[in-house]
Amino acid sequence: MHAHVDLGSVTVALLGPRRLTTTLRDTYQRAAAGVVEFDRPEDVSSRSLSGVGYAVIAVPETTDSADALDGADVWRGALATAGAALPVSVERVAERTRGSITLVGGGPGDPGLITAAGLHALAHADVIYADRLAPAVTDELAPGVRVVPVGKRPGHHPVPQSEIQTQMIEAALAGETVVRFKGGDPFVFGRGGEELLACREAGVDVHVIPGITSAVAVPENAGIPVTFRELSRSFTVVSGHDPLDENELEHLAGLSRSGATIVLLMGMATLPQTVSGLARHGLAGETPLAVLEKGFSPEERSTYTTLATAVVDAAAAGCASPAVTVIGPVVHALADGARPGSGVPASEMPTSDAPVSAASNGDTPDAGTPDPGREARS
Amino acid sequence: MHAHVDLGSVTVALLGPRRLTTTLRDTYQRAAAGVVEFDRPEDVSSRSLSGVGYAVIAVPETTDSADALDGADVWRGALATAGAALPVSVERVAERTRGSITLVGGGPGDPGLITAAGLHALAHADVIYADRLAPAVTDELAPGVRVVPVGKRPGHHPVPQSEIQTQMIEAALAGETVVRFKGGDPFVFGRGGEELLACREAGVDVHVIPGITSAVAVPENAGIPVTFRELSRSFTVVSGHDPLDENELEHLAGLSRSGATIVLLMGMATLPQTVSGLARHGLAGETPLAVLEKGFSPEERSTYTTLATAVVDAAAAGCASPAVTVIGPVVHALADGARPGSGVPASEMPTSDAPVSAASNGDTPDAGTPDPGREARS
Repeated sequence: MHAHVDLGSVTVALLGPRRLTTTLRDTYQRAAAGVVEFDRPEDVSSRSLSGVGYAVIAVPETTDSADALDGADVWRGALATAGAALPVSVERVAERTRGSITLVGGGPGDPGLITAAGLHALAHADVIYADRLAPAVTDELAPGVRVVPVGKRPGHHPVPQSEIQTQMIEAALAGETVVRFKGGDPFVFGRGGEELLACREAGVDVHVIPGITSAVAVPENAGIPVTFRELSRSFTVVSGHDPLDENELEHLAGLSRSGATIVLLMGMATLPQTVSGLARHGLAGETPLAVLEKGFSPEERSTYTTLATAVVDAAAAGCASPAVTVIGPVVHALADGARPGSGVPASEMPTSDAPVSAASNGDTPDAGTPDPGREARS
Repeated sequence: MHAHVDLGSVTVALLGPRRLTTTLRDTYQRAAAGVVEFDRPEDVSSRSLSGVGYAVIAVPETTDSADALDGADVWRGALATAGAALPVSVERVAERTRGSITLVGGGPGDPGLITAAGLHALAHADVIYADRLAPAVTDELAPGVRVVPVGKRPGHHPVPQSEIQTQMIEAALAGETVVRFKGGDPFVFGRGGEELLACREAGVDVHVIPGITSAVAVPENAGIPVTFRELSRSFTVVSGHDPLDENELEHLAGLSRSGATIVLLMGMATLPQTVSGLARHGLAGETPLAVLEKGFSPEERSTYTTLATAVVDAAAAGCASPAVTVIGPVVHALADGARPGSGVPASEMPTSDAPVSAASNGDTPDAGTPDPGREARS
């Protein structure tokens, strides 16, 4: 039907419901055409058709001929109203089977720390709702994929959570392969659980691909192991977005008194309240504390202090969000020149701009496989 | 020097110190030769040379000619002693710069859940000390890489920890690019901190690439988010390898009373002691508890119970290591038909063989990049 048109040189307007145009889009993009899609006749205008050289009206394969022509006529009318004089064809399209949503954990920010499965999901998405996508990922996406930035920063939520959920569910119900690309792990303070529940309630197939959580990886990259033999055999990851309550402070302090690690996320604003509360519940003032700002970014910085001096030292260093705060003896388990028992008071340790270890970026082979639960057995 | 030999049809013996033969190995393998390496003359024998058609003695580029000939003569002598009548050449080789060790987190066992950086490191290793490598990874390794299995299972440690460290440090000091491939994350009960410290003390460059921890991913794959708004804003990951002490039990129970999640690794043998201790310190008997066995393997299974009935139910179901145990209201945050307030008593929930969500495997594009610290900001 379009064999006489050199598709490589035109932009094609695909007109029809998304579940049909999404299927057509792949066909035309394989033919190297530019594609714009319209799923509402009222969006067709001379301006929105700018640069379009050819129009395809998508009708369902399953409707009878009269209905199909009726459906096509709505779009012909919209084109006429817009004053467009374009070659138009009508294509019968198999309705796309129901789509799906995959929540992908994007890890702590290092391009190399996304998983093979996560990259695979991104590469096969029709639409990506992304907290943030770096150029390295964008280069690998399928042609024509729509990327919808919905990233939040403190005090800046461009797209409300409910709207993100509504949009991605609508896309999936329209037959699209949807990826929700989230920082860290979807289920660690990422509201992934809520999104999964919303998808299920809407009857959409939903999958989760775990990601590396910054609660473990940011300390790791700064040379702090969250567990270490004979120092700590547990770690608690807690959100400091809202002030910790007395019960939390009491029992975190209690656990920590025997060396257990506290990893505080989103805790900069509430740091004074947290450290004074832990101290009030008996955690020693000399307990090591590290503020790890902007992990895995070029501006990453580690500030070493103690529970007693944290507020003053963090203020002096100008520490700011985003930061991961680690409290416990593991802070110095590996630190050069500040090993446990080395006699260097934590309060005399410098602020360091250089991470002691760093993940390398990776150009990547095909697939890999790890060991099931080694960490759960040693 | 070897232009007259069809390398594609022979196995070449490379004779000399590892830091020299490792460099040569790459050259010969690129020429499609089979390669065997000898770094000790006493290992040269008619048996070890079986199938070898050509020998290359590697001498350092930096030594003077007389010394180089002396060095070569040792190897010529060894070949003669072995009764080998082989063509022999001597090659001057630039001494390899000092090697390095990279600790790579292999994730919870799903081949798709290793990171791009981890796969890159594996693909460029000279030698891999592996807890376990699945065939999907093995296929992607550089030709000639040595894989040393050092995996532990309960009660079975084929290579002691100190020996693993010694071997990999020796390999790195000999100029090799070493990867230590570990399950989960290297710093979550993986003794990665110890290994890193040992490497540093030996003066070896060492890097860490984080991995997905089973403490988060195994619950996630079973449909349990470790945090969930209005249910839990913290989670504690604790090793149950040894019995928890009274201080830990008291404060874990205290945190958990307000909804905080407990994730117990290596805790099957000590489960009776753990649950009775938590109950003694005031955690309610109806607190949901899930035993997640063999996560990310074909035999994975989830058993839902409560603190009060956990020991009986786990015994009845025949639960065994490896397992991740989750305690807290998040157990039912997403579970189909067992939502909070749905009125289904946890003790009546079935054991399920089907995970409610699963990561897909991935064939993988080049590199990706995620969002820095999204989970630390929402």
